[in-house]
Amino acid sequence: MDRRSFIRKAAIGGSAIAASSTLAAPLVAQTTPKVNWRLTSSFPKSLDTIYGASDTLSKYLSEATDGNFTMQVFPAGELVPGLEAANEVGAGNVEACHTVGYYYFGKDPSYAVAAAVPFSLSARGMNAWHYYGGGIDLYNTFLEQHGLVAFPGGNTGVQMGGWFRREINTVADMVGLKMRIGGFAGQVMSKLGVVPQQIAGGDIYPSLERGVIDAAEWVGPYDDEKLGFVKVAPYYYYPGWWEGGPTVHFMFNKTAYEALPAGYQSLLRTACQAVNMDMMSSYDHKNPTAVKTLVAQGAQLRPFTPEVLEACFNAAEEVYAETSAGNPGFATLWDSIKTFRGDFYQWTQIAEYNYDTFMMIQKNNGKI
Amino acid sequence: MDRRSFIRKAAIGGSAIAASSTLAAPLVAQTTPKVNWRLTSSFPKSLDTIYGASDTLSKYLSEATDGNFTMQVFPAGELVPGLEAANEVGAGNVEACHTVGYYYFGKDPSYAVAAAVPFSLSARGMNAWHYYGGGIDLYNTFLEQHGLVAFPGGNTGVQMGGWFRREINTVADMVGLKMRIGGFAGQVMSKLGVVPQQIAGGDIYPSLERGVIDAAEWVGPYDDEKLGFVKVAPYYYYPGWWEGGPTVHFMFNKTAYEALPAGYQSLLRTACQAVNMDMMSSYDHKNPTAVKTLVAQGAQLRPFTPEVLEACFNAAEEVYAETSAGNPGFATLWDSIKTFRGDFYQWTQIAEYNYDTFMMIQKNNGKI
Repeated sequence: MDRRSFIRKAAIGGSAIAASSTLAAPLVAQTTPKVNWRLTSSFPKSLDTIYGASDTLSKYLSEATDGNFTMQVFPAGELVPGLEAANEVGAGNVEACHTVGYYYFGKDPSYAVAAAVPFSLSARGMNAWHYYGGGIDLYNTFLEQHGLVAFPGGNTGVQMGGWFRREINTVADMVGLKMRIGGFAGQVMSKLGVVPQQIAGGDIYPSLERGVIDAAEWVGPYDDEKLGFVKVAPYYYYPGWWEGGPTVHFMFNKTAYEALPAGYQSLLRTACQAVNMDMMSSYDHKNPTAVKTLVAQGAQLRPFTPEVLEACFNAAEEVYAETSAGNPGFATLWDSIKTFRGDFYQWTQIAEYNYDTFMMIQKNNGKI
Repeated sequence: MDRRSFIRKAAIGGSAIAASSTLAAPLVAQTTPKVNWRLTSSFPKSLDTIYGASDTLSKYLSEATDGNFTMQVFPAGELVPGLEAANEVGAGNVEACHTVGYYYFGKDPSYAVAAAVPFSLSARGMNAWHYYGGGIDLYNTFLEQHGLVAFPGGNTGVQMGGWFRREINTVADMVGLKMRIGGFAGQVMSKLGVVPQQIAGGDIYPSLERGVIDAAEWVGPYDDEKLGFVKVAPYYYYPGWWEGGPTVHFMFNKTAYEALPAGYQSLLRTACQAVNMDMMSSYDHKNPTAVKTLVAQGAQLRPFTPEVLEACFNAAEEVYAETSAGNPGFATLWDSIKTFRGDFYQWTQIAEYNYDTFMMIQKNNGKI
């Protein structure tokens, strides 16, 4: 596809008309440029919460421009395979995508840092880093070489640790475990003897059922419920320490983004920020019901033991050190988050954590 | 002021122009209506984080419309006293305000429910309720009689419990305590023997210094630092159980809002949602540093004891029952949050809470 075929020039022309009345302010005629973009989601329609974020973006843009700036949304696989979304956008074959940076971990682990890496920030921390800690600029400095510009466009909150066919109580229980888990987390797990497996979403259930794999991570209650894992791997572990506050990004072809009129660029950033709020709220409203349903269906909630978490943390530190040593771009991004992370969790444990703790005690005592 | 003097009619007229080139898509000429609104903030400029949310909204609107939809922001007191903002907007004297519903608790306690009431939802919970739990519609159904339409436009996260001249270890220590605290929380406190005081922001410091009051609540570290309370009341309590996730709202004159073109209405909602994300992120980035500064200045961090929190919770339940009995509108709003609250904290304590807990342990052990 010719890159120029989709880049709508930002030229603004037309005549100025002034009108006035006693009630109405003067109206100024302007040309509103027609921009029709396509967005390829890395997610199937069945994940309505995360896929729906793209529909929401499209709606916000179209409504605010009276239908002049449109974004046609395609589910993973229709235009582009889900895990190729950012590559195709960077190459100029599609204008936009909604994707998670860690899908491109194999290409360069730097992609993953602004999305989710093990033991990183929670959703609120990631947002603070992106919007006020220089995160957006740092990430876009990295993405420039790949022809991309990205803005946060959703978060799932802390994910679950996945579905296990048997209980994991010690680090020894992880040795030889065949688990569907990828990227950075897969590397960390492999240091502990886990055998990471790459399996597409639709193939996880039969693989668990037949015992081809022993465990699989997916997202959280609302999304996991749809795939029915509870029937074949009932131990539902938490927390998903590799996704403490995974940021989903809207990514745009840099040339196309820069060709937009300044007003549309600003609207696009505003709409992405609104969707970032919207998607998190959607999960936060749906997960509480879904986890109750899963427990009713037989899910056995299990926390990872402190021993297991500590071992995973230490293994992650090794991977961080190895990756940073060989990849200065990765180190720049990760150091920026790391510097903020300590302060963030120090503050969070004061007011926020104690409030939550008290409210949870009230819940568990039947007071709320 | 004549209400009609500020309501810009939404009429759209003008001629259509079509242009095309090999590279550019057709351009459609449209009139972009000029709308110039004023927004009165309930906050002084010195509270740059919360006041700044209005500047951010103004920027988003103006940029997205090439300066055609503007929102001139006034700090508290310039157009309207801070605590009168919503009243003046409802009366049609100003188009918009940025305010907290609980400032109007005395007029009708229902105002407070969508902002913050004791032992309610955290910031993420409040957002989930607003955007996906029907909260926005419920609140606007109540606000209609007051001529208002509101959308969430910021959150501070859990606030601190305030500054105390002496330690509070038991419920008995609260008897006779003169505390600057208002509205719903003041009513709850008074059930425990506290004597609530209404004191404007600028008068709190001298009142604490001279011992006219024993304690004062304000916001959180970043805002509190500016007022220097640490020098005169060093015991800094947490959490502020009366503000678990206080939502600041943008409120608009209903007639003015409904007269906006549909595109501007949508843009306004989108921009408010973006600002809601932005303000929380700003606090989450600034508070971690501010709390360290305050401790360095001598702040003594103190948790409210379980005994004190339990007593406050029980007193709040009494106020809820009394208020709901006499005010069905209040009951409707509060019941909606209450129904969601239990499920929300049940879910939050699984993945989110355990992740945060582990990360805080790492922080406290010097690992991060």
